[in-house]
Amino acid sequence: MQTLIQSVLALQNGHLQSLDVLLDGQYIHTVAPAGTLSASPDCQTIQAISGQDKLLLPGFVNGHTHSSQVWQRGLIPQLPLELWLANVFESTPRQLEQFYWGAVSTAVDTLLSGGTCLLDHAYLIPGQELETIDALVRGYKAVGIRAVIAPLIQDLPFASGFPAGCLLSQAASPRSAAQLLALMETIIAEFHDPDQSIYIGLGPTGFHRCSDQLLQGCADLSQQYQLCYHMHLLETRAQQRLAQERYGISAVQHLHNLGCLGSRTSLAHGVWINNQDIDLLATCSTTLVHNPVSNLRLGSGLAPILQCVQAGLNVSFGCDGAASNDAQNLLEAIKLGTILHTVTDSDYEHWLTPEQAIVMATIGGAKGVNLSDRTGAITAGMEADLVLYNLNHPSLLPRTNPLQLLVLGRPTEVVEAVWIRGRQIVDQGRVLTVDTHTLHRALRQHPANSEAAQTHHHLVEAHYRQVMLRS
Amino acid sequence: MQTLIQSVLALQNGHLQSLDVLLDGQYIHTVAPAGTLSASPDCQTIQAISGQDKLLLPGFVNGHTHSSQVWQRGLIPQLPLELWLANVFESTPRQLEQFYWGAVSTAVDTLLSGGTCLLDHAYLIPGQELETIDALVRGYKAVGIRAVIAPLIQDLPFASGFPAGCLLSQAASPRSAAQLLALMETIIAEFHDPDQSIYIGLGPTGFHRCSDQLLQGCADLSQQYQLCYHMHLLETRAQQRLAQERYGISAVQHLHNLGCLGSRTSLAHGVWINNQDIDLLATCSTTLVHNPVSNLRLGSGLAPILQCVQAGLNVSFGCDGAASNDAQNLLEAIKLGTILHTVTDSDYEHWLTPEQAIVMATIGGAKGVNLSDRTGAITAGMEADLVLYNLNHPSLLPRTNPLQLLVLGRPTEVVEAVWIRGRQIVDQGRVLTVDTHTLHRALRQHPANSEAAQTHHHLVEAHYRQVMLRS
Repeated sequence: MQTLIQSVLALQNGHLQSLDVLLDGQYIHTVAPAGTLSASPDCQTIQAISGQDKLLLPGFVNGHTHSSQVWQRGLIPQLPLELWLANVFESTPRQLEQFYWGAVSTAVDTLLSGGTCLLDHAYLIPGQELETIDALVRGYKAVGIRAVIAPLIQDLPFASGFPAGCLLSQAASPRSAAQLLALMETIIAEFHDPDQSIYIGLGPTGFHRCSDQLLQGCADLSQQYQLCYHMHLLETRAQQRLAQERYGISAVQHLHNLGCLGSRTSLAHGVWINNQDIDLLATCSTTLVHNPVSNLRLGSGLAPILQCVQAGLNVSFGCDGAASNDAQNLLEAIKLGTILHTVTDSDYEHWLTPEQAIVMATIGGAKGVNLSDRTGAITAGMEADLVLYNLNHPSLLPRTNPLQLLVLGRPTEVVEAVWIRGRQIVDQGRVLTVDTHTLHRALRQHPANSEAAQTHHHLVEAHYRQVMLRS
Repeated sequence: MQTLIQSVLALQNGHLQSLDVLLDGQYIHTVAPAGTLSASPDCQTIQAISGQDKLLLPGFVNGHTHSSQVWQRGLIPQLPLELWLANVFESTPRQLEQFYWGAVSTAVDTLLSGGTCLLDHAYLIPGQELETIDALVRGYKAVGIRAVIAPLIQDLPFASGFPAGCLLSQAASPRSAAQLLALMETIIAEFHDPDQSIYIGLGPTGFHRCSDQLLQGCADLSQQYQLCYHMHLLETRAQQRLAQERYGISAVQHLHNLGCLGSRTSLAHGVWINNQDIDLLATCSTTLVHNPVSNLRLGSGLAPILQCVQAGLNVSFGCDGAASNDAQNLLEAIKLGTILHTVTDSDYEHWLTPEQAIVMATIGGAKGVNLSDRTGAITAGMEADLVLYNLNHPSLLPRTNPLQLLVLGRPTEVVEAVWIRGRQIVDQGRVLTVDTHTLHRALRQHPANSEAAQTHHHLVEAHYRQVMLRS
């Protein structure tokens, strides 16, 4: 079965062009100037689609999220990460069914905001780790999205994430590094399934809650199985301070010394990296995943994105979980990431353009999840992960510059069709693979535990204020 | 005709409560605890509306926009204000019909993002000033929105907006202050029409393009007719520098000396005000209109909003025109304004909460347009400017904290009903008063002049770079 998208606007080499794009099975077969390719009227095996008043882009990649936080959307008050986390842990879902629906919901939100791939830095239910992954995999397979699942693992207690120590006790003591690495081997063997668009990644929480042994062991597994290596990095000022306390050198330099940085590595946030860190990350061909909505929501700060781009460091976009970005809309994250950094540099020649933002969200995103050999570009031979936008939608009027309207406007319901590995997943704005009414019914039956989610941070608040605000 | 909204969630005194709200004609007649009021089944004159799974808020006020810029949405590249303006002027619409549709479009976008009132700092077609106002008034009356039209007037040339002078010549020389003030008297006499929800305001562009005579004359007219006085203030670093060059004192102090600051005055932006300015503005009961999306889009900087709020200065929200915020969505502006300022203060106890943001957007907004005696609160005796949100919409799931989901999420198509002065303008998410298909057809026929809109800034670029970036 072939699909021919005719005379459609697309961004190629930094410019909008009108193209014919032929899909064959799971691949992009031919990309040619508009009017070059045609399907004969009696051809039974080619589906022809008019690209008039449409824009075709490679699917965006959501480079960092936590799908189970869908259940915590709108739940946790605005607090700095360290306090917010206490509330998040307290209100994390405990039922496997919630993890399934969290995956479906995140996937649907991704598709309908222009994404075809996401990285789920996934919470695991203690004692039900394999079952949790299974629920997520079922959710992503049901939708048909390309998903990288990097299970969150850590072998240091919650309190280790605070500078100057913290007296909060940990309810359950974490597993050892060796146990966690063995668990990851099992998960990889059982669930890594590229033929079904499901990829396992290594996902240690971050240096602040992981021993060197765990960080290094994950790097070894990433190397052995050629998998994406993903973790949080210097999201907050508290983490920067912690790195100084613990290592005496920059966290980035420490990770480099452990062998954790390379082209398969992507790091979420990096709000507090310095110029030396940026150069080192660029040299290592590592990716930084920028989560602008979450960074503002948690007051983490302004990541030095313009400096990263100037240094040649690959930057992609992420939504982060719904507990710290109470939406999972990639177009929103891309817009904010495009306009936010003007405040850090008064020379407008350094500002990100909509064209750059699209490249970061597509090619940059694909590189960040170790999939740039197959997704992120409209090029013959690549797998067909494509999104068709309706330029006649009221939120994209009047018809001026389509890319600028898409990135700088507030597009709503503009995703008309989505293909992932050549399979059409969305048509006329509707997801074809799952029943979204059932999803929404499930979400409406929310077992709210609002009070704990809003008060648990009081247990660590005095320590946080003492260490971070009074010194 | 009475309308009874039964058992609806509403924000009263900082808390969500379940209320019965009875509307009578254009007023809110009674506000009572849920279950208190009832309409007998055979009552022909009371329309009863179930508030189950709904949230009722006073309508937001869009405190600063330029409606004709709807035609420039997505058109102008990202540039600092001073360069961007050159492109905006060059591509400003010239047809009265475009002004009509610009008003209709802005009003519809306002309604569907929770607003019931807007302030249009309106461009006027030179030589067709009264006809321009007439077109705007027709647009707003057609929709039925509450609109304050403050015509943009200036008596200094474009070049006066640049520090250290600028050699760019002005195509048409502006009118004199006396001519402009006479024009405003005519406009007030002809178009100020509170009974039809149309208000005229005084809208000098800002100190940077206005003589003291014009600024003072506008203050006199504002006093004489008790009208809103609105202008741009210290939007950019260049304007701050200009004020120093021209006055040797802060622009706010200069405006105060001229008698321009008072409780009817609202100032857009204020990005570069200092602590003394904030105190002075608070003392004068003046309003600052915060336009966070536009400020980032143009790289104007971060307005000191947390300091303003702490000083007791009234702050409201604005979208600014569609040439600098390529959407006109109040919920987006409110969200960004709520989370953006965390980066300026690490003490989270100072961060804006969703509840504060709603108060700023409603009561604060009403005060900023000199209408707080009649709109902005759900209180008996106030005019009924109300918005009913559908809490079952997928973008507001799961059902956690409705206010937090509304402000911190990315709500889409959640506005179910809107009343303005008791008249229902939106029902089931559809605008009842104008045919939006006709509006969208008009917007699709865009007479693009893209090239001029993207290159005209080259005429002033060398001067700008010399003065603002190399010194």
